Amino acid sequence: MSIATAGTSLCRQAAVRSRRHVYHREDPMDARTAGRRYVYAFADGNKGQRELLGGKGANLAEMTRIGLPVPPGFIISTDACRDFLAGRETLPEGLWAQVSEHLDALEAASGRTFGGSEPLLVSVRSGAAFSMPGMMDTILNVGLNDRTLEHIARATQDERFAWDAYRRLLQLFGKVVMGVKGGAFEEELSKAVANAGVRDEIALGADHLRDLTATFKSVIRAHTGQEFPQEPRRQLRQAIEAVFRSWNGRRARDYRRHEGIDDDLGTAVNVQQMVFGNLGEDSGTGVAFTRNPSTGEPTPYGDWLPGAQGEDVVAGIRMTQKLDDLAGPFPQCHQHLTAVMDRLERHYRDMCDIEFTIERSRLFILQTRVGKRTAAAAVRMAVDMATEGLIDDREAVTRVTPRQLDQLLHPQFEPDADYSVLTRGLNASPGAATGHVRFTADDAEAAANKGEHVILVRPETSPDDLHGLIAAKGVLTSTGGLVSHAAVVARGMGKPAICGAADIDIDVARRVFTVGDVTVHEDDIISIDGTTGEVVVGEVPVRIPEPGPEFETLLGWADHFRALRVHANADTGEDAAVARGYGAEGIGLCRTEHMFLGDRLPIIQRVILADTQEEAVAALDELGRVQESDFADLLEPMDGLPVIVRLLDPPLHEFLPDLTELVIAEAKDELDDEGHQLLQAARHWQEFNPMLGTRGCRLGILKPDLYRMQVRSLMRAAVARKRAGGKPIVEIMIPLIVAAAEFRLLAGWVRAVADDVLAEAHVDLPYKVGTMVETPRAALTAGAIAADAEFFSFGTNDLTQMTFGFSRDDVQGRVMPRYLAEQLLPVDPFSSLDPEGVGRLIEIASREGRAARPDLEVGICGEHGGDPQSIRLCHELELDYVSCSPYRIPVARLAAAHAALRASRHDASA
Amino acid sequence: MSIATAGTSLCRQAAVRSRRHVYHREDPMDARTAGRRYVYAFADGNKGQRELLGGKGANLAEMTRIGLPVPPGFIISTDACRDFLAGRETLPEGLWAQVSEHLDALEAASGRTFGGSEPLLVSVRSGAAFSMPGMMDTILNVGLNDRTLEHIARATQDERFAWDAYRRLLQLFGKVVMGVKGGAFEEELSKAVANAGVRDEIALGADHLRDLTATFKSVIRAHTGQEFPQEPRRQLRQAIEAVFRSWNGRRARDYRRHEGIDDDLGTAVNVQQMVFGNLGEDSGTGVAFTRNPSTGEPTPYGDWLPGAQGEDVVAGIRMTQKLDDLAGPFPQCHQHLTAVMDRLERHYRDMCDIEFTIERSRLFILQTRVGKRTAAAAVRMAVDMATEGLIDDREAVTRVTPRQLDQLLHPQFEPDADYSVLTRGLNASPGAATGHVRFTADDAEAAANKGEHVILVRPETSPDDLHGLIAAKGVLTSTGGLVSHAAVVARGMGKPAICGAADIDIDVARRVFTVGDVTVHEDDIISIDGTTGEVVVGEVPVRIPEPGPEFETLLGWADHFRALRVHANADTGEDAAVARGYGAEGIGLCRTEHMFLGDRLPIIQRVILADTQEEAVAALDELGRVQESDFADLLEPMDGLPVIVRLLDPPLHEFLPDLTELVIAEAKDELDDEGHQLLQAARHWQEFNPMLGTRGCRLGILKPDLYRMQVRSLMRAAVARKRAGGKPIVEIMIPLIVAAAEFRLLAGWVRAVADDVLAEAHVDLPYKVGTMVETPRAALTAGAIAADAEFFSFGTNDLTQMTFGFSRDDVQGRVMPRYLAEQLLPVDPFSSLDPEGVGRLIEIASREGRAARPDLEVGICGEHGGDPQSIRLCHELELDYVSCSPYRIPVARLAAAHAALRASRHDASA
Repeated sequence: MSIATAGTSLCRQAAVRSRRHVYHREDPMDARTAGRRYVYAFADGNKGQRELLGGKGANLAEMTRIGLPVPPGFIISTDACRDFLAGRETLPEGLWAQVSEHLDALEAASGRTFGGSEPLLVSVRSGAAFSMPGMMDTILNVGLNDRTLEHIARATQDERFAWDAYRRLLQLFGKVVMGVKGGAFEEELSKAVANAGVRDEIALGADHLRDLTATFKSVIRAHTGQEFPQEPRRQLRQAIEAVFRSWNGRRARDYRRHEGIDDDLGTAVNVQQMVFGNLGEDSGTGVAFTRNPSTGEPTPYGDWLPGAQGEDVVAGIRMTQKLDDLAGPFPQCHQHLTAVMDRLERHYRDMCDIEFTIERSRLFILQTRVGKRTAAAAVRMAVDMATEGLIDDREAVTRVTPRQLDQLLHPQFEPDADYSVLTRGLNASPGAATGHVRFTADDAEAAANKGEHVILVRPETSPDDLHGLIAAKGVLTSTGGLVSHAAVVARGMGKPAICGAADIDIDVARRVFTVGDVTVHEDDIISIDGTTGEVVVGEVPVRIPEPGPEFETLLGWADHFRALRVHANADTGEDAAVARGYGAEGIGLCRTEHMFLGDRLPIIQRVILADTQEEAVAALDELGRVQESDFADLLEPMDGLPVIVRLLDPPLHEFLPDLTELVIAEAKDELDDEGHQLLQAARHWQEFNPMLGTRGCRLGILKPDLYRMQVRSLMRAAVARKRAGGKPIVEIMIPLIVAAAEFRLLAGWVRAVADDVLAEAHVDLPYKVGTMVETPRAALTAGAIAADAEFFSFGTNDLTQMTFGFSRDDVQGRVMPRYLAEQLLPVDPFSSLDPEGVGRLIEIASREGRAARPDLEVGICGEHGGDPQSIRLCHELELDYVSCSPYRIPVARLAAAHAALRASRHDASA
Repeated sequence: MSIATAGTSLCRQAAVRSRRHVYHREDPMDARTAGRRYVYAFADGNKGQRELLGGKGANLAEMTRIGLPVPPGFIISTDACRDFLAGRETLPEGLWAQVSEHLDALEAASGRTFGGSEPLLVSVRSGAAFSMPGMMDTILNVGLNDRTLEHIARATQDERFAWDAYRRLLQLFGKVVMGVKGGAFEEELSKAVANAGVRDEIALGADHLRDLTATFKSVIRAHTGQEFPQEPRRQLRQAIEAVFRSWNGRRARDYRRHEGIDDDLGTAVNVQQMVFGNLGEDSGTGVAFTRNPSTGEPTPYGDWLPGAQGEDVVAGIRMTQKLDDLAGPFPQCHQHLTAVMDRLERHYRDMCDIEFTIERSRLFILQTRVGKRTAAAAVRMAVDMATEGLIDDREAVTRVTPRQLDQLLHPQFEPDADYSVLTRGLNASPGAATGHVRFTADDAEAAANKGEHVILVRPETSPDDLHGLIAAKGVLTSTGGLVSHAAVVARGMGKPAICGAADIDIDVARRVFTVGDVTVHEDDIISIDGTTGEVVVGEVPVRIPEPGPEFETLLGWADHFRALRVHANADTGEDAAVARGYGAEGIGLCRTEHMFLGDRLPIIQRVILADTQEEAVAALDELGRVQESDFADLLEPMDGLPVIVRLLDPPLHEFLPDLTELVIAEAKDELDDEGHQLLQAARHWQEFNPMLGTRGCRLGILKPDLYRMQVRSLMRAAVARKRAGGKPIVEIMIPLIVAAAEFRLLAGWVRAVADDVLAEAHVDLPYKVGTMVETPRAALTAGAIAADAEFFSFGTNDLTQMTFGFSRDDVQGRVMPRYLAEQLLPVDPFSSLDPEGVGRLIEIASREGRAARPDLEVGICGEHGGDPQSIRLCHELELDYVSCSPYRIPVARLAAAHAALRASRHDASA
């Protein structure tokens, strides 16, 4: 006799019953009353009901509906979870009655009873609308107790199986439902294995396992002061409550924050009749994907184990077999499974991930969902499926997330590299890095100053560690979640980070960390991959993956749908060439001050230090010559596309040595004449708040020759390019404007110089003069400024700094992590544009600017230009373009397409 | 025969003629065509036409209209000036024809002709809508030439008079019209006096003066290469053009900027038949006021000189006689004048200032206007006139400007002090100061560091002199206008400044300055009064004037009309008491950090440096005790009025020694253990842009015990006060909020502590919790914040800093003076609220805040709260109150009344 009865027939009966005795949701009675419908039989739902039934439940219902072999069961809706949580964690009224009725139906249909002599066993699984793998809890074998155990043993004629099932229930129930902390059960299990003198737990016999259940019961008693509940309905009720509670577990909350999942959604609970893959050689269990989730190749892929339960496959203790090898021992099941997979992929129009169990030669599908895949696989599958006609190109574009595309462009471990994972933590900031271990920020800084690559390893980081984070190539912490200090700061800096790697035990004083019996010392080399959370001892080769041909195809489709243009922030010819290679449609921001660094520093210092007008002019001329050649380099790869050049923006002290160091040198009497000159200049240009001081156009007004030199160099480079047969399109951007009159004055200077150069050269070349809108006041007076300005570019970094009053350098280390942890801000506004404050200013400015000048060109530059959420906001605000770093261009192109497709869906559904 | 004919009859004729041959303004022809009416006879205008005819012209017309003895003439309108300036300084078409026709009328009526044997002589005077004393030009005796001179000499039988008149014309015409620079004429005049061996120019005889005219003609020839024009109509035409041009003179422009007068208004030109007070003993001239302009006493006051021209009275060369003494030699004229003055005061309902001339025993009124008066006189006159029934109290309130009231509250020279004015400059920043002269910023700083009071004397100042301006009690410059660096910075700091004292010759290298033959050395004591522009050698006693009883009366009336409440910014019991004395209706801002300075500094340092939680708690407790007593002191004088207390706002490093100094000490190995601790703390809390860093509520969130301590101390003080029978009303303000969730968290903490204190004490005491809106984002998300906040106080200093991206400390010295000089900003936004940017944010925030919470209390604190223009904006934005420093309270009360009266006038006229 089989434990599972025919799912479909049972489900049909249950569905009939449910229609008879369960109220409909439309019932006008109050939500907190018994009138609300909370429980749905599998046959009552479909895959469109993710929000109500959770993803797992909706898919179980869908598979049941289309006739696939699913063990029967029912779903407790997310409504119930929300009401449970809102009601101080008590089951909402009426819920238990509905569960009981569905249980009755399950019993009646199966001829089995909960706690009876033909005992019904069920699994209780969480299942939210969005996948949160491993974040919430599952309990198997509910319904087992001291009595039903005997019946199971008898029915299956497998005593070992029965005791093993019982000890698993005790273990899971003890941990998840009754809150037994730590490794208490695992410890006893290890002891039992040792006492029995066997290799592992699989080798434990029925007697050992019977003894272990007794031990586990006393563990529960010792830790909780309570007995394991023998009554199956009480087990079920507590298990349901525990799953609901797990929605608000720390890790689940952190995960949702990171993934942008709403905390109010809640989870559903799936109660399903158990089937067993570990009932001997004619049973088994496995996981299968309709396509290869790693490479995207269009052939099924999977692993299975004979005589095993699902968790054994995932746990990786036993060596799994390949899916193709199923055909040998289970030819019919293999054929059946292949048909099911084909059906599912066509039905879901996407790659599906399946859990199956073979119980005594009979195939059951326990779960399906649209399968997770690597970034590379996502791109390949999307393009393949569109080519196959399974989906259209619009759908293909939405199948790849910008974050996946970003991963493709970050360094990662060589896929072919041979390495073993020491441990895993939270993938807190993407990218991979290799370096020498250091345990304190000071040590990290000291090593980095010697040119070493360093990985900073700390229990957690604090603002005092900021210099260490700056010095390190990556960071690894043992505590802290996705919004911990280390995570937030690393993401802000674009460095790899793994946080909350709980298996790591760090001894800072002794400068070692251990994972199990592996010890890693200071200066040892480790590798971390912040995209996957993997920690590896030794060096793993790292590379930026080479995107396949599908990458270009997909982006080509994306370009079709997007409304936003995508420009690049680039200051050099090389960057411009990379950007164009990635599809940039122009340069949105060239920061000319970058041209004053390196070997040009002495020249700009001569400008600053000049005693006489002649000296200043000579130094400026020299600077102008080098800048002209820089501009020539920049214009060449962008031929035919607009190049927006920002005039000098930072304060002058940035081109001088650090004042404190000069002061120390002076105190030690170590300054020569030039040193004293530099000290005097550094004092002169020192400011309390340099970000809000004499910089940008303010400096341009105080030192008009600087801007004139820059405009002259740019226009000369453009003239030369045109004469050489090129098509330069230059736009000159004046930074930090606060008033229309200020812009008018400077734009006048700029146009005068530009026109002079053109007239002198007898070359006709249209150019634009516009401004960076980066002060709140520029946004608030944009209408007046647009009277003279031909374009606006929102400098969202500064605009965010001023709108919040946040100095990024100062708040990022100390304040931001706290603010995100306390949920005072939904997201770091330097990562994603703040819609309420900064976004509102952008909306005001672009609306009023365009009212004054209908053909005003409006875009954003700054790091938000590469952030998908910000790009969506820019699309909604109807900007003309976003500008981001060259390597973010593909991400921005895709995100812009997503934003447009999303908006058109909204329009269509409105 | 008299030079002047009966003005009234002439004017009547002229008026008749003008109606016949002058087009009306309503003529539909284009403004730049001959069709526009530019010229008005005196009898054609009235005092309501200031904008069109200028103040002087409108008053001449009014006096003519009501039958006062005004010499006849006509007015060229401000329209003509605007068209002249818009048309590249050419007389608009048709203007000259109109002038000629009016001249014809003047000739016909007087029987005199321009250039004829009975020659007509006229004055040509500027006259704008707003008085701009001495800022524009006047030319007298137009019509005199080599030929008419003879006729005049014959007709007056006074050859000396004729030559003197001629040399005056040459002198004025040469300077004003023909642009002869510098003291060329004065030099020749001095030579002539010396050659003649007489005491002064009055003693020069006809022959001397005849020679002088020849010399003056050659001066003109030498300096301009042109001859003095003999043709009277050409003289007139050039004189008119010169007056128009003088509208755009440098000083005039600066003056208008300072006074807030629109540059587009233009000046009118008054052409009036000359009368002469210097035709012997039966002639004379004088200036009279209908009340005493210095004290406000309600009796006429004036000076006159027998046998003199108007300029002689003003020039102060000859000893004038008192008005009462006119009755002796000119009894009829005196009686006539008294009647005229009485008539004028009743007609104008204000104190009038009159220029009169007696030509051969006949009284002429050459000009009248509402008279300038001292601040004290303004207050007394307003109250007296209202008491007399001449005006009502509403009018009385508008008669005193907030700036006048402010002057009454600034230090000024003792009115009774005996001092002689060395020289005068522009009154660039009000207040008086005395100190030792220093010529460089470094010297000033060094002396100030030794405790000396210093006056910084410089040709001009630059950003490099900022430390000197900070160190000095006042500043005196020889060049630069009202928007020069020194002027702007001094006003910003509230220090006295006199700028552009052109007579001062400064030799910085030798550390002396000279005025004429007076030499002032370094370290000598001088006194300056920035309210009047007076510079005095030696110490002049300075005091804040004691306002008379009218002061309180007037403010009482003002309180009647205003809608805004006026609160004070005060941190101590003494300040609170002063504020209440001046009529404060509460404390709008208590900056609690001020309680951490002085002898409390070591305690807050102990909090910062604490190694253990216990040490920190102990130090915080101590701080709490002293702060509780501070709060008790503050609440007492404000009993029954609201006291808004802001929790700690500045960054922690402000309570630590300067990092650079610590670093230097460390470099020199001079730090002890505590020094090293302080250095470490200073490094820890150092920030790149502290204004936008870890301060305000950010620090409150990172260090929750600090805010809890402050709230506990405040509530305990309030409890004690209530138990002592007082009526404390406390409102707790959380600074630097950027998000609703942030406020919610902190307000929760604050309320928890406050409620605890009250519960413990069994005292019921309502209190409010609100926020300072000082980040643009708080303003933009005010609706959400107001869900929890019970009041908003706009921190306009920070809001201005962030909206403009201006760090006040940094831009004030370097950027702001330039921006004001270039007119990139109409006004320093730290002095007067910027309506377009900051004002718009305030409007958004108060509107949306009140929509969310209709009883939201909304006000501003910060220095704008005492600025009349800002107060007007606050009234228009319908705020509930403004808060300013105690000494500004009266100014704010008056300004608030003006704002309300102005708005009600606007409503009435709409």
